[in-house]
Amino acid sequence: MTDHARALVLFSGGQDSTTCLAWALSRYAHVETIGFDYGQRHIVELTVRPTILEKLRELSPDWARKLGEDHLIALPVISTVSECALTRDVAIAIQDNGLPNTFVPGRNLLFLTVAAMLAYRRGLTVLVGGMCETDFSGYPDCRDGTLKALQVALNLGMATDLALETPLMWLGKAQTWQLAQEVGGEALVNLIRDETHTCYLGERHWHDWGRGCGECPACALRMKGYREFMQHLTEDLT
Amino acid sequence: MTDHARALVLFSGGQDSTTCLAWALSRYAHVETIGFDYGQRHIVELTVRPTILEKLRELSPDWARKLGEDHLIALPVISTVSECALTRDVAIAIQDNGLPNTFVPGRNLLFLTVAAMLAYRRGLTVLVGGMCETDFSGYPDCRDGTLKALQVALNLGMATDLALETPLMWLGKAQTWQLAQEVGGEALVNLIRDETHTCYLGERHWHDWGRGCGECPACALRMKGYREFMQHLTEDLT
Repeated sequence: MTDHARALVLFSGGQDSTTCLAWALSRYAHVETIGFDYGQRHIVELTVRPTILEKLRELSPDWARKLGEDHLIALPVISTVSECALTRDVAIAIQDNGLPNTFVPGRNLLFLTVAAMLAYRRGLTVLVGGMCETDFSGYPDCRDGTLKALQVALNLGMATDLALETPLMWLGKAQTWQLAQEVGGEALVNLIRDETHTCYLGERHWHDWGRGCGECPACALRMKGYREFMQHLTEDLT
Repeated sequence: MTDHARALVLFSGGQDSTTCLAWALSRYAHVETIGFDYGQRHIVELTVRPTILEKLRELSPDWARKLGEDHLIALPVISTVSECALTRDVAIAIQDNGLPNTFVPGRNLLFLTVAAMLAYRRGLTVLVGGMCETDFSGYPDCRDGTLKALQVALNLGMATDLALETPLMWLGKAQTWQLAQEVGGEALVNLIRDETHTCYLGERHWHDWGRGCGECPACALRMKGYREFMQHLTEDLT
Protein backbone atom coordinates (compact mmCIF):
# COMPACT_ATOMS: atom_id res chain seq x y z
CA MET A 1 0.00 0.00 0.00
CA THR A 2 1.22 3.50 -0.80
CA ASP A 3 2.30 5.41 2.30
CA HIS A 4 0.06 8.46 2.30
CA ALA A 5 2.19 10.69 4.51
CA ARG A 6 3.44 13.27 2.02
CA ALA A 7 0.96 15.81 0.72
CA LEU A 8 0.76 18.56 -1.88
CA VAL A 9 -1.75 21.31 -1.08
CA LEU A 10 -3.29 23.56 -3.74
CA PHE A 11 -2.62 26.86 -2.01
CA SER A 12 -3.89 30.13 -3.48
CA GLY A 13 -3.60 32.31 -0.40
CA GLY A 14 -7.36 32.39 0.16
CA GLN A 15 -9.29 31.40 3.27
CA ASP A 16 -10.24 27.95 1.99
CA SER A 17 -6.85 26.83 0.76
CA THR A 18 -5.09 28.20 3.85
CA THR A 19 -7.48 26.22 6.04
CA CYS A 20 -6.71 23.13 3.92
CA LEU A 21 -2.99 23.75 4.33
CA ALA A 22 -3.28 23.92 8.13
CA TRP A 23 -5.48 20.80 8.06
CA ALA A 24 -2.78 19.00 6.03
CA LEU A 25 -0.03 20.17 8.41
CA SER A 26 -2.03 18.70 11.29
CA ARG A 27 -2.14 15.20 9.73
CA TYR A 28 0.69 14.57 7.26
CA ALA A 29 4.42 14.18 7.91
CA HIS A 30 5.54 16.38 5.02
CA VAL A 31 3.56 19.05 3.20
CA GLU A 32 4.45 21.01 0.06
CA THR A 33 2.36 23.70 -1.60
CA ILE A 34 1.53 24.59 -5.19
CA GLY A 35 0.06 27.80 -6.57
CA PHE A 36 -0.80 28.87 -10.09
CA ASP A 37 -0.06 32.14 -11.81
CA TYR A 38 -2.29 32.44 -14.86
CA GLY A 39 -2.48 36.19 -15.18
CA GLN A 40 -5.42 36.39 -12.78
CA ARG A 41 -6.59 39.89 -12.01
CA HIS A 42 -6.07 39.44 -8.31
CA ILE A 43 -2.38 38.82 -8.18
CA VAL A 44 -2.68 39.92 -4.55
CA GLU A 45 -3.66 36.30 -3.88
CA LEU A 46 -0.20 35.32 -4.98
CA THR A 47 1.61 38.04 -3.07
CA VAL A 48 -0.02 37.07 0.22
CA ARG A 49 1.10 33.43 -0.12
CA PRO A 50 4.70 33.86 1.15
CA THR A 51 3.49 35.86 4.18
CA ILE A 52 0.98 33.18 5.11
CA LEU A 53 3.61 30.43 4.79
CA GLU A 54 5.98 32.40 7.02
CA LYS A 55 3.31 33.00 9.66
CA LEU A 56 2.23 29.35 9.66
CA ARG A 57 5.86 28.44 10.37
CA GLU A 58 5.93 30.93 13.25
CA LEU A 59 2.71 29.50 14.66
CA SER A 60 4.07 26.02 15.31
CA PRO A 61 7.55 24.46 15.36
CA ASP A 62 5.94 21.18 14.27
CA TRP A 63 4.38 22.85 11.23
CA ALA A 64 7.65 24.66 10.46
CA ARG A 65 9.40 21.29 10.38
CA LYS A 66 6.77 19.67 8.14
CA LEU A 67 6.30 22.50 5.66
CA GLY A 68 8.40 21.88 2.55
CA GLU A 69 8.82 23.63 -0.78
CA ASP A 70 6.34 26.03 -2.30
CA HIS A 71 5.91 25.63 -6.08
CA LEU A 72 4.54 28.58 -8.01
CA ILE A 73 3.65 27.35 -11.50
CA ALA A 74 2.96 29.65 -14.46
CA LEU A 75 -0.09 28.56 -16.46
CA PRO A 76 -0.57 31.13 -19.24
CA VAL A 77 -2.43 28.43 -21.20
CA ILE A 78 -5.56 29.39 -19.23
CA SER A 79 -5.66 32.82 -20.80
CA THR A 80 -4.71 31.38 -24.20
CA VAL A 81 -7.71 29.07 -24.10
CA SER A 82 -9.95 31.83 -22.73
CA GLU A 83 -9.14 34.09 -25.62
CA CYS A 84 -10.01 31.54 -28.27
CA ALA A 85 -13.71 32.34 -28.27
CA LEU A 86 -13.22 36.05 -27.74
CA THR A 87 -10.72 36.83 -30.47
CA ARG A 88 -11.56 34.29 -33.14
CA ASP A 89 -14.48 33.45 -35.33
CA VAL A 90 -16.81 31.93 -32.76
CA ALA A 91 -19.65 34.14 -31.54
CA ILE A 92 -20.05 34.64 -27.81
CA ALA A 93 -23.20 32.76 -26.90
CA ILE A 94 -25.02 30.94 -24.14
CA GLN A 95 -24.36 27.24 -24.56
CA ASP A 96 -26.74 24.30 -24.15
CA ASN A 97 -25.60 23.91 -20.52
CA GLY A 98 -26.69 27.47 -19.68
CA LEU A 99 -23.16 28.87 -19.30
CA PRO A 100 -21.67 31.45 -21.68
CA ASN A 101 -18.79 30.22 -23.84
CA THR A 102 -16.56 33.01 -22.47
CA PHE A 103 -16.43 31.16 -19.16
CA VAL A 104 -13.46 28.74 -19.02
CA PRO A 105 -14.62 25.56 -17.40
CA GLY A 106 -12.36 22.77 -16.26
CA ARG A 107 -9.84 25.09 -14.59
CA ASN A 108 -9.71 22.88 -11.50
CA LEU A 109 -9.25 19.80 -13.70
CA LEU A 110 -6.17 21.46 -15.18
CA PHE A 111 -4.86 22.60 -11.77
CA LEU A 112 -5.26 19.10 -10.31
CA THR A 113 -3.68 17.41 -13.34
CA VAL A 114 -0.62 19.66 -13.15
CA ALA A 115 -0.51 19.17 -9.37
CA ALA A 116 -0.66 15.39 -9.84
CA MET A 117 2.22 15.54 -12.33
CA LEU A 118 4.29 17.59 -9.89
CA ALA A 119 3.32 15.31 -6.98
CA TYR A 120 4.58 12.33 -8.97
CA ARG A 121 7.93 14.02 -9.50
CA ARG A 122 8.21 15.06 -5.85
CA GLY A 123 7.17 11.72 -4.37
CA LEU A 124 4.01 13.20 -2.81
CA THR A 125 1.02 10.87 -2.58
CA VAL A 126 -1.84 13.05 -1.36
CA LEU A 127 -3.35 16.06 -3.16
CA VAL A 128 -5.37 18.43 -0.99
CA GLY A 129 -7.76 20.98 -2.50
CA GLY A 130 -10.30 23.39 -1.05
CA MET A 131 -13.09 22.51 -3.49
CA CYS A 132 -16.50 22.72 -1.90
CA GLU A 133 -20.03 21.93 -3.08
CA THR A 134 -21.73 23.95 -0.38
CA ASP A 135 -21.03 27.46 -1.60
CA PHE A 136 -20.01 26.98 -5.23
CA SER A 137 -22.35 24.27 -6.46
CA GLY A 138 -22.55 26.08 -9.79
CA TYR A 139 -19.01 25.01 -10.67
CA PRO A 140 -19.09 21.45 -11.93
CA ASP A 141 -15.33 21.03 -11.48
CA CYS A 142 -15.72 21.56 -7.71
CA ARG A 143 -18.17 18.68 -7.30
CA ASP A 144 -17.32 15.60 -5.31
CA GLY A 145 -18.20 13.23 -8.16
CA THR A 146 -15.97 15.11 -10.59
CA LEU A 147 -13.02 14.94 -8.24
CA LYS A 148 -13.47 11.24 -7.54
CA ALA A 149 -13.66 10.50 -11.26
CA LEU A 150 -10.56 12.61 -11.79
CA GLN A 151 -8.67 10.70 -9.10
CA VAL A 152 -9.42 7.49 -10.99
CA ALA A 153 -8.29 8.96 -14.34
CA LEU A 154 -5.09 10.43 -12.85
CA ASN A 155 -4.17 7.17 -11.11
CA LEU A 156 -4.85 5.07 -14.20
CA GLY A 157 -2.94 7.53 -16.39
CA MET A 158 0.12 7.75 -14.16
CA ALA A 159 0.09 4.26 -12.64
CA THR A 160 -0.02 5.81 -9.17
CA ASP A 161 -2.09 5.56 -6.00
CA LEU A 162 -2.63 9.25 -5.33
CA ALA A 163 -5.39 10.24 -2.90
CA LEU A 164 -7.30 13.43 -3.63
CA GLU A 165 -8.57 14.95 -0.36
CA THR A 166 -11.11 17.79 -0.17
CA PRO A 167 -11.69 18.50 3.54
CA LEU A 168 -14.07 21.42 2.85
CA MET A 169 -16.33 19.58 0.38
CA TRP A 170 -19.44 19.57 2.59
CA LEU A 171 -18.69 22.50 4.91
CA GLY A 172 -20.36 25.88 4.89
CA LYS A 173 -18.22 28.98 5.44
CA ALA A 174 -18.87 29.11 9.20
CA GLN A 175 -17.85 25.46 9.46
CA THR A 176 -14.64 26.21 7.58
CA TRP A 177 -13.74 28.72 10.29
CA GLN A 178 -14.67 26.08 12.85
CA LEU A 179 -12.27 23.63 11.17
CA ALA A 180 -9.48 26.21 11.43
CA GLN A 181 -10.28 26.62 15.12
CA GLU A 182 -10.07 22.86 15.67
CA VAL A 183 -6.83 22.49 13.75
CA GLY A 184 -4.91 25.53 15.01
CA GLY A 185 -6.95 27.33 17.64
CA GLU A 186 -7.61 31.03 17.87
CA ALA A 187 -4.13 31.90 16.62
CA LEU A 188 -4.86 30.17 13.30
CA VAL A 189 -8.32 31.73 13.03
CA ASN A 190 -6.75 35.15 13.49
CA LEU A 191 -3.98 34.39 11.01
CA ILE A 192 -6.52 33.32 8.38
CA ARG A 193 -8.74 36.32 9.10
CA ASP A 194 -5.86 38.82 8.90
CA GLU A 195 -3.65 37.42 6.15
CA THR A 196 -5.71 35.48 3.61
CA HIS A 197 -7.28 37.05 0.58
CA THR A 198 -10.70 36.25 -0.89
CA CYS A 199 -12.03 39.53 -2.39
CA TYR A 200 -12.81 39.39 -6.13
CA LEU A 201 -11.78 43.01 -6.59
CA GLY A 202 -8.38 42.62 -4.97
CA GLU A 203 -9.16 45.23 -2.29
CA ARG A 204 -7.38 45.03 1.09
CA HIS A 205 -9.48 47.27 3.36
CA TRP A 206 -9.70 46.19 7.00
CA HIS A 207 -12.91 44.70 8.40
CA ASP A 208 -13.64 42.64 11.50
CA TRP A 209 -13.82 39.52 9.25
CA GLY A 210 -10.61 40.25 7.31
CA ARG A 211 -9.50 42.39 4.40
CA GLY A 212 -11.47 43.05 1.22
CA CYS A 213 -13.82 45.43 -0.55
CA GLY A 214 -16.72 44.34 1.67
CA GLU A 215 -19.17 44.42 -1.23
CA CYS A 216 -18.39 41.68 -3.76
CA PRO A 217 -20.01 38.21 -3.46
CA ALA A 218 -16.78 36.68 -2.12
CA CYS A 219 -16.53 39.30 0.64
CA ALA A 220 -20.24 38.94 1.47
CA LEU A 221 -19.86 35.16 1.81
CA ARG A 222 -16.74 35.51 3.91
CA MET A 223 -18.29 38.11 6.23
CA LYS A 224 -21.45 36.04 6.70
CA GLY A 225 -19.46 32.89 7.50
CA TYR A 226 -17.14 34.64 9.94
CA ARG A 227 -19.98 36.33 11.80
CA GLU A 228 -21.94 33.08 12.09
CA PHE A 229 -18.85 31.37 13.40
CA MET A 230 -18.18 34.13 15.96
CA GLN A 231 -21.78 34.04 17.11
CA HIS A 232 -21.59 30.28 17.73
CA LEU A 233 -18.32 30.77 19.62
CA THR A 234 -19.97 33.40 21.82
CA GLU A 235 -23.05 31.23 22.39
CA ASP A 236 -20.82 28.30 23.37
CA LEU A 237 -19.16 30.46 26.02
CA THR A 238 -22.40 31.71 27.61
CA MET B 1 -28.41 14.60 -27.36
CA THR B 2 -25.27 16.51 -28.22
CA ASP B 3 -24.65 16.73 -31.97
CA HIS B 4 -21.27 15.08 -32.39
CA ALA B 5 -20.37 16.60 -35.76
CA ARG B 6 -17.61 19.01 -34.80
CA ALA B 7 -14.25 17.54 -33.83
CA LEU B 8 -10.92 18.66 -32.41
CA VAL B 9 -7.96 16.47 -33.38
CA LEU B 10 -4.74 16.30 -31.35
CA PHE B 11 -2.34 16.79 -34.24
CA SER B 12 1.42 16.62 -33.72
CA GLY B 13 2.48 16.13 -37.34
CA GLY B 14 3.36 12.46 -36.79
CA GLN B 15 2.04 9.45 -38.70
CA ASP B 16 -0.54 8.52 -36.08
CA SER B 17 -2.09 11.92 -35.53
CA THR B 18 -2.15 12.68 -39.26
CA THR B 19 -4.00 9.41 -39.86
CA CYS B 20 -6.44 10.40 -37.10
CA LEU B 21 -6.94 13.78 -38.72
CA ALA B 22 -7.78 12.21 -42.09
CA TRP B 23 -10.10 9.75 -40.33
CA ALA B 24 -11.86 12.69 -38.64
CA LEU B 25 -12.16 14.58 -41.94
CA SER B 26 -13.83 11.51 -43.44
CA ARG B 27 -16.59 11.44 -40.79
CA TYR B 28 -17.19 14.82 -39.15
CA ALA B 29 -18.67 17.99 -40.65
CA HIS B 30 -16.10 20.36 -39.15
CA VAL B 31 -12.62 19.55 -37.90
CA GLU B 32 -10.15 21.76 -36.04
CA THR B 33 -6.65 20.80 -34.90
CA ILE B 34 -4.60 21.42 -31.78
CA GLY B 35 -0.86 21.01 -31.26
CA PHE B 36 1.35 21.61 -28.24
CA ASP B 37 4.67 23.38 -28.06
CA TYR B 38 6.35 22.42 -24.81
CA GLY B 39 9.98 22.93 -25.75
CA GLN B 40 10.23 19.42 -27.15
CA ARG B 41 13.54 18.59 -28.76
CA HIS B 42 11.93 17.73 -32.06
CA ILE B 43 10.41 20.97 -33.00
CA VAL B 44 10.47 19.58 -36.55
CA GLU B 45 7.17 17.90 -35.60
CA LEU B 46 5.71 21.35 -35.24
CA THR B 47 7.24 22.76 -38.43
CA VAL B 48 5.81 19.94 -40.57
CA ARG B 49 2.26 20.55 -39.29
CA PRO B 50 1.38 23.51 -41.57
CA THR B 51 2.68 21.63 -44.64
CA ILE B 52 0.57 18.58 -43.84
CA LEU B 53 -2.53 20.72 -43.32
CA GLU B 54 -1.95 22.43 -46.67
CA LYS B 55 -1.47 19.13 -48.49
CA LEU B 56 -4.58 17.59 -46.91
CA ARG B 57 -6.54 20.57 -48.25
CA GLU B 58 -5.08 20.00 -51.72
CA LEU B 59 -5.98 16.30 -51.57
CA SER B 60 -9.74 16.84 -51.33
CA PRO B 61 -12.08 19.82 -51.78
CA ASP B 62 -14.39 18.20 -49.20
CA TRP B 63 -11.59 18.07 -46.64
CA ALA B 64 -10.52 21.63 -47.51
CA ARG B 65 -14.05 22.78 -46.73
CA LYS B 66 -14.25 20.88 -43.44
CA LEU B 67 -10.82 21.72 -42.07
CA GLY B 68 -11.04 24.67 -39.68
CA GLU B 69 -8.58 26.47 -37.45
CA ASP B 70 -5.30 25.07 -36.22
CA HIS B 71 -4.50 25.92 -32.59
CA LEU B 72 -0.86 25.77 -31.50
CA ILE B 73 -0.78 25.99 -27.71
CA ALA B 74 2.35 26.74 -25.68
CA LEU B 75 2.67 24.46 -22.64
CA PRO B 76 5.95 25.36 -20.94
CA VAL B 77 4.48 23.92 -17.72
CA ILE B 78 5.61 20.49 -18.92
CA SER B 79 9.26 21.45 -18.68
CA THR B 80 8.63 23.32 -15.40
CA VAL B 81 7.23 20.15 -13.85
CA SER B 82 9.98 18.01 -15.42
CA GLU B 83 12.67 20.10 -13.84
CA CYS B 84 11.30 19.82 -10.34
CA ALA B 85 12.98 16.50 -9.57
CA LEU B 86 16.12 17.34 -11.51
CA THR B 87 16.97 20.72 -10.06
CA ARG B 88 15.61 20.49 -6.54
CA ASP B 89 16.21 18.42 -3.46
CA VAL B 90 14.64 15.15 -4.55
CA ALA B 91 17.05 12.40 -5.60
CA ILE B 92 16.57 10.81 -9.01
CA ALA B 93 15.37 7.30 -8.27
CA ILE B 94 13.39 4.38 -9.60
CA GLN B 95 9.91 4.60 -8.11
CA ASP B 96 7.67 1.82 -6.77
CA ASN B 97 6.00 1.54 -10.18
CA GLY B 98 9.35 0.77 -11.89
CA LEU B 99 9.62 4.12 -13.70
CA PRO B 100 12.31 6.70 -12.90
CA ASN B 101 11.06 9.95 -11.36
CA THR B 102 12.68 11.93 -14.18
CA PHE B 103 9.98 10.65 -16.52
CA VAL B 104 6.97 13.00 -16.66
CA PRO B 105 3.84 10.89 -16.68
CA GLY B 106 0.40 12.18 -17.37
CA ARG B 107 1.41 14.27 -20.37
CA ASN B 108 -1.53 12.98 -22.39
CA LEU B 109 -3.87 13.72 -19.48
CA LEU B 110 -2.70 17.32 -19.60
CA PHE B 111 -2.96 17.52 -23.42
CA LEU B 112 -6.50 16.13 -23.38
CA THR B 113 -7.61 18.39 -20.52
CA VAL B 114 -6.36 21.49 -22.34
CA ALA B 115 -7.90 20.20 -25.58
CA ALA B 116 -11.23 19.67 -23.80
CA MET B 117 -11.12 23.21 -22.43
CA LEU B 118 -10.43 24.57 -25.91
CA ALA B 119 -13.13 22.34 -27.44
CA TYR B 120 -15.64 23.76 -24.98
CA ARG B 121 -14.77 27.28 -26.04
CA ARG B 122 -14.91 26.42 -29.74
CA GLY B 123 -18.17 24.45 -29.59
CA LEU B 124 -16.43 21.20 -30.61
CA THR B 125 -17.90 18.01 -29.15
CA VAL B 126 -15.50 15.25 -30.21
CA LEU B 127 -11.85 14.93 -29.22
CA VAL B 128 -9.74 12.67 -31.43
CA GLY B 129 -6.34 11.35 -30.31
CA GLY B 130 -3.89 8.83 -31.73
CA MET B 131 -3.28 6.99 -28.46
CA CYS B 132 -2.70 3.32 -29.00
CA GLU B 133 -2.19 0.36 -26.67
CA THR B 134 -0.67 -1.87 -29.31
CA ASP B 135 2.74 -0.28 -29.64
CA PHE B 136 3.06 1.87 -26.53
CA SER B 137 1.50 -0.25 -23.83
CA GLY B 138 4.20 0.98 -21.44
CA TYR B 139 2.56 4.41 -21.26
CA PRO B 140 -0.36 4.24 -18.85
CA ASP B 141 -1.82 7.49 -20.17
CA CYS B 142 -2.31 5.88 -23.61
CA ARG B 143 -4.47 3.05 -22.28
CA ASP B 144 -8.10 2.68 -23.22
CA GLY B 145 -9.27 2.52 -19.59
CA THR B 146 -7.40 5.71 -18.71
CA LEU B 147 -8.97 7.61 -21.58
CA LYS B 148 -12.48 6.38 -20.80
CA ALA B 149 -12.06 7.41 -17.14
CA LEU B 150 -10.73 10.78 -18.29
CA GLN B 151 -13.75 11.32 -20.55
CA VAL B 152 -15.99 10.80 -17.53
CA ALA B 153 -13.98 13.23 -15.38
CA LEU B 154 -13.85 15.89 -18.13
CA ASN B 155 -17.58 15.65 -18.79
CA LEU B 156 -18.49 15.80 -15.10
CA GLY B 157 -16.07 18.68 -14.56
CA MET B 158 -17.27 20.76 -17.49
CA ALA B 159 -20.93 19.70 -17.61
CA THR B 160 -20.46 18.61 -21.21
CA ASP B 161 -21.05 15.54 -23.38
CA LEU B 162 -17.69 15.37 -25.10
CA ALA B 163 -16.77 12.10 -26.85
CA LEU B 164 -13.12 11.06 -26.78
CA GLU B 165 -12.33 8.96 -29.87
CA THR B 166 -9.11 6.96 -30.33
CA PRO B 167 -9.35 5.23 -33.72
CA LEU B 168 -5.86 3.70 -33.46
CA MET B 169 -6.29 2.21 -29.98
CA TRP B 170 -6.14 -1.46 -31.07
CA LEU B 171 -4.29 -1.12 -34.37
CA GLY B 172 -0.71 -2.19 -35.08
CA LYS B 173 1.44 0.07 -37.25
CA ALA B 174 0.67 -1.82 -40.47
CA GLN B 175 -3.05 -1.51 -39.71
CA THR B 176 -2.63 2.24 -39.18
CA TRP B 177 -1.31 2.49 -42.77
CA GLN B 178 -4.25 0.34 -43.86
CA LEU B 179 -6.63 2.80 -42.19
CA ALA B 180 -5.03 5.67 -44.10
CA GLN B 181 -5.50 3.70 -47.33
CA GLU B 182 -9.20 3.15 -46.54
CA VAL B 183 -9.81 6.77 -45.61
CA GLY B 184 -7.83 8.55 -48.33
CA GLY B 185 -6.40 6.00 -50.76
CA GLU B 186 -2.87 5.84 -52.08
CA ALA B 187 -2.61 9.64 -52.24
CA LEU B 188 -3.08 9.88 -48.46
CA VAL B 189 -0.68 6.98 -47.79
CA ASN B 190 1.96 8.77 -49.84
CA LEU B 191 1.25 12.10 -48.14
CA ILE B 192 1.66 10.51 -44.71
CA ARG B 193 4.79 8.64 -45.76
CA ASP B 194 6.44 11.74 -47.26
CA GLU B 195 5.36 14.54 -44.95
CA THR B 196 4.81 13.25 -41.43
CA HIS B 197 7.53 13.08 -38.82
CA THR B 198 8.05 10.33 -36.27
CA CYS B 199 11.83 10.11 -35.68
CA TYR B 200 12.96 10.66 -32.07
CA LEU B 201 16.18 12.31 -33.23
CA GLY B 202 14.49 14.84 -35.49
CA GLU B 203 16.35 13.57 -38.59
CA ARG B 204 14.76 13.99 -42.02
CA HIS B 205 16.73 11.58 -44.25
CA TRP B 206 14.74 9.95 -47.07
CA HIS B 207 13.78 6.27 -46.89
CA ASP B 208 11.18 4.20 -48.73
CA TRP B 209 8.99 4.38 -45.58
CA GLY B 210 9.40 8.13 -45.01
CA ARG B 211 11.92 10.47 -43.46
CA GLY B 212 13.91 9.86 -40.29
CA CYS B 213 17.21 8.66 -38.90
CA GLY B 214 16.32 5.05 -39.68
CA GLU B 215 17.84 3.80 -36.43
CA CYS B 216 15.82 5.00 -33.44
CA PRO B 217 12.95 2.92 -32.02
CA ALA B 218 10.32 5.20 -33.60
CA CYS B 219 11.91 4.84 -37.07
CA ALA B 220 12.29 1.07 -36.61
CA LEU B 221 8.61 0.73 -35.71
CA ARG B 222 7.52 2.93 -38.59
CA MET B 223 9.67 1.08 -41.12
CA LYS B 224 8.43 -2.30 -39.94
CA GLY B 225 4.79 -1.22 -40.11
CA TYR B 226 5.11 0.33 -43.55
CA ARG B 227 6.88 -2.71 -45.00
CA GLU B 228 4.29 -5.09 -43.56
CA PHE B 229 1.54 -2.93 -45.01
CA MET B 230 3.20 -2.80 -48.45
CA GLN B 231 3.68 -6.56 -48.42
CA HIS B 232 -0.01 -7.13 -47.71
CA LEU B 233 -0.92 -4.71 -50.49
CA THR B 234 1.31 -6.64 -52.91
CA GLU B 235 -0.12 -9.98 -51.79
CA ASP B 236 -3.67 -8.68 -52.25
CA LEU B 237 -2.84 -7.75 -55.83
CA THR B 238 -1.33 -11.11 -56.77
